Amino acid sequence: MADQQSLYFEDFHPGQVFELGSFTADAADMLAFARQYDPLPFHVDQDAAAGSIYGGLTSSGWYTAVMMYRLMYNGFLNEQTGLGSPGLELAWLKPMRAGQRLHGRVVVESVRQSKSRPEIGFVASTATLSDDGGEVIYRVRNTGIFKTRSG
Amino acid sequence: MADQQSLYFEDFHPGQVFELGSFTADAADMLAFARQYDPLPFHVDQDAAAGSIYGGLTSSGWYTAVMMYRLMYNGFLNEQTGLGSPGLELAWLKPMRAGQRLHGRVVVESVRQSKSRPEIGFVASTATLSDDGGEVIYRVRNTGIFKTRSG
Repeated sequence: MADQQSLYFEDFHPGQVFELGSFTADAADMLAFARQYDPLPFHVDQDAAAGSIYGGLTSSGWYTAVMMYRLMYNGFLNEQTGLGSPGLELAWLKPMRAGQRLHGRVVVESVRQSKSRPEIGFVASTATLSDDGGEVIYRVRNTGIFKTRSG
Repeated sequence: MADQQSLYFEDFHPGQVFELGSFTADAADMLAFARQYDPLPFHVDQDAAAGSIYGGLTSSGWYTAVMMYRLMYNGFLNEQTGLGSPGLELAWLKPMRAGQRLHGRVVVESVRQSKSRPEIGFVASTATLSDDGGEVIYRVRNTGIFKTRSG
């Protein structure tokens, strides 16, 4: 993997893989986020969660999304060359639960330099979050905007 | 609009519109969120932002997403009958900036009861966040899971 600090648009190519490392879902963090932004009963209430279709407390999907984004931020996006995203598609495939260890990975799908603004390019990627057994619990298809070297 | 507390799967139908009210983007909140989750220079650094393609500080897209979700949570989803979402597609169409007043709206696109689990159904919707001039700055196409009355 190239130095994360040096990645311009030209450094990405289809098939490129970035291993993003892992984190353990923290019960207190999950709960604090859910209370603030997403207080559905199965995110914040142990008893209600046990009786729900999820069979126990689960992370807010937005917390999962943001934690994945943090992994991507550290291992794929770039403070010097990353310029945000026009949009993305995400899938919550399995509940995320406290104590789970989760592993992030990004695969570059395609790259395209802007015709109207050659100083930027678009990098489409699929990022996944997997549990210790390798099962993907979350997937995000993102288009990132990056500076070109000439930009 | 029906009482938000009473909405089961059967209460949704294509074309139904929910006006979600509005909020004003708060500079301090935007900055606090970006520092914690998304510290790209154009989200947290006034000078860097001024020199960026965005021409000034912008909200983290995740903050926009979460604020829109809060509007949906209060005016569309339901603590008693809402069961989360398998995934969604979102688009950041324009930067969100501090001081902007933003209006949320959801339009129901389609509804489908689960065949394997008739106690739940899927409600596909498109939600938008618009500025005072009516320009859409953010759009999310979501599939929500709701309890059926028989469930």
